[in-house]
Amino acid sequence: MWIYIAMGAGETSRHFNENRPMNSPTLAQTLFLTAQDMAAMVHQLGLASTLAGLAEAIEHDYRRWQDFDKCARVASHSAEGVIELMPIADARTYAFKYVNGHPKNTRIGLPTVMAFGVLADVATGVPELLTELTLTTALRTAAMSAVAARALARPNSSSMALIGNGAQSEFQALAFKQLLGIREIRLFDTDRAATAKLMHNLQDAGLRLLPCASIAEAVRGVDIVTTVTADKTNATILTPELIEPGMHINGVGGDCPGKTELHPDVLRGAAVFVQYEPQTRIEGDLQHLPADFAVTELWRVLRHEAPGRSHDAQVTLFDSVGFALEDYSALRFMRDAAQRLGYGQWVSLIPELSNSKDLFSLIQPAAKPAQRQELAPA
Amino acid sequence: MWIYIAMGAGETSRHFNENRPMNSPTLAQTLFLTAQDMAAMVHQLGLASTLAGLAEAIEHDYRRWQDFDKCARVASHSAEGVIELMPIADARTYAFKYVNGHPKNTRIGLPTVMAFGVLADVATGVPELLTELTLTTALRTAAMSAVAARALARPNSSSMALIGNGAQSEFQALAFKQLLGIREIRLFDTDRAATAKLMHNLQDAGLRLLPCASIAEAVRGVDIVTTVTADKTNATILTPELIEPGMHINGVGGDCPGKTELHPDVLRGAAVFVQYEPQTRIEGDLQHLPADFAVTELWRVLRHEAPGRSHDAQVTLFDSVGFALEDYSALRFMRDAAQRLGYGQWVSLIPELSNSKDLFSLIQPAAKPAQRQELAPA
Repeated sequence: MWIYIAMGAGETSRHFNENRPMNSPTLAQTLFLTAQDMAAMVHQLGLASTLAGLAEAIEHDYRRWQDFDKCARVASHSAEGVIELMPIADARTYAFKYVNGHPKNTRIGLPTVMAFGVLADVATGVPELLTELTLTTALRTAAMSAVAARALARPNSSSMALIGNGAQSEFQALAFKQLLGIREIRLFDTDRAATAKLMHNLQDAGLRLLPCASIAEAVRGVDIVTTVTADKTNATILTPELIEPGMHINGVGGDCPGKTELHPDVLRGAAVFVQYEPQTRIEGDLQHLPADFAVTELWRVLRHEAPGRSHDAQVTLFDSVGFALEDYSALRFMRDAAQRLGYGQWVSLIPELSNSKDLFSLIQPAAKPAQRQELAPA
Repeated sequence: MWIYIAMGAGETSRHFNENRPMNSPTLAQTLFLTAQDMAAMVHQLGLASTLAGLAEAIEHDYRRWQDFDKCARVASHSAEGVIELMPIADARTYAFKYVNGHPKNTRIGLPTVMAFGVLADVATGVPELLTELTLTTALRTAAMSAVAARALARPNSSSMALIGNGAQSEFQALAFKQLLGIREIRLFDTDRAATAKLMHNLQDAGLRLLPCASIAEAVRGVDIVTTVTADKTNATILTPELIEPGMHINGVGGDCPGKTELHPDVLRGAAVFVQYEPQTRIEGDLQHLPADFAVTELWRVLRHEAPGRSHDAQVTLFDSVGFALEDYSALRFMRDAAQRLGYGQWVSLIPELSNSKDLFSLIQPAAKPAQRQELAPA
């Protein structure tokens, strides 16, 4: 079943876009970053610096929200999961991400969420960058969460519950440490091995990590609650009696029709903030609430056009679903870093033609047969 | 401006799909075909054999129309052109194409239409094939035109007018020679150099090629008229007085809102056939006609569930816009050929993880920095 959600027409303008030339060896070549390239580049950049850079890029782009031509992602659902395309464009640059969500993938050794993406030139259609986005999606989701929490959580927040300790959890933990000064994280996952993995991975991260026996134990007394679970069900990870005055809830895992994490009364008791309202109404935890339930788009808070948190006892909730704009921001950040540091390879996704109307020349006898070759390891 | 067109829910079933295993070295690797790989592979396969194979794949897939989850493409329009994503899926395989249309690209040496695409596994979301589709789009468009004409043109057709002699024209000419037995082609283009290029490229193709001084001269007396022009305007390449009884019109270039080729009365005077009605109503020459103007989806003719041409004097018209299903068919044809002939390279678009919940392990100190490397030439 295809689900389209909504369409929006954004005004665009050129003056904000600092799109840098790609220095491509020819007009039509594409810079290609493999999964290994990205891992090595993030390792070189450092995780703290990458998360800070992504948060800065995302916040910058959210503040120029009206520059973008936006639409909800196009999703193809099957029994096993979902495959989505997430396009967005401003006047200079078009971006899209391919991303799946298959909760059972971990049983056969594959990540639940895998992704890749492209930046293209609006003026010509040339794809300028093709890159892995599996690692990058975890990074940008964590950076997005931190950008929202910075605007919505109590300023003195120092503790967080992290419900769901899977593939994205370490990135959430580190983004909140780096960008909000969170020092203590209380952990819960139905899979104890996932929690143990997180504790091992972050043993030297400078965080106080406390594994908990239940969601209630993890949540009690914390400033921020992050839910990042993967089950494709209408789960209720958080129920109203767990929520305390002043908490900020960062709901990351409820991001698909039929895949939610929060009891509807948790939303009813909170000030709810979203990325792109038409998409969140279908995909977010918001899907269980009536169409007139009031929410605020985050860009308005970031531009100081709408209030965020109104007082210390208010419960704020970011119903995060993953919007194409974060990927646009992440793609341009990664492109600039790859250009600066020399990562990636130029590939010919598009043919080079001496006469652009002579596509036929490509298959004239002069064309030489190719040999299959493995790419050199990164 | 984003334009979504429509959504359709297709029933799906598994039993038609003969998806072959990819023999990937690991579970998550992707076979990558560059523009050079594709040109060399098509050269080795031979153009006639490639066109015949594509036509067979397209016809096979159109006959199992109900197996597909279909949607109109998602288009982002700018002043210079359009960038589109075209997804489609059956129960086993997901496919999408990225494609642009920028008529002014030829001024800077780039093709008007450039494309690449992906096949992915519905069960896991793994992208199995990533390939150039610029050359392939021209090939599959020609094969699609021939499949439609085989069902709609008079069986004894031997002559065709070819209006528009740009990048796609040679492929149209050869597909109609190969699949319909066309022997004489009358050529017209406002750009005489384009016609000269076509005549040079097809000098040994076994076709009688006749350059004409006007559209009227080219069209007079032919069995089939193919229009494949690139201007992003509401042009009227064909007007009613040019149309003769019994003609089949293959309208390829009117494929975008505001980009048409045919006078509305040409459609009114013909039996009109389309790929996917919701998309063609927005993008095709059909866009100028009222929503209740009757058309027939081609798959119904191919399945003998609807009549095609009813008599020799009837004018038939295929209002071709390019639908995702042709790309699905082309992608699986090219994947099978690449597997058989050993083209392409395995790349890691998706990271390999020893623990699929441990994405964080990718950026642990063990990760080695990458060096920029050029791909070895194909």
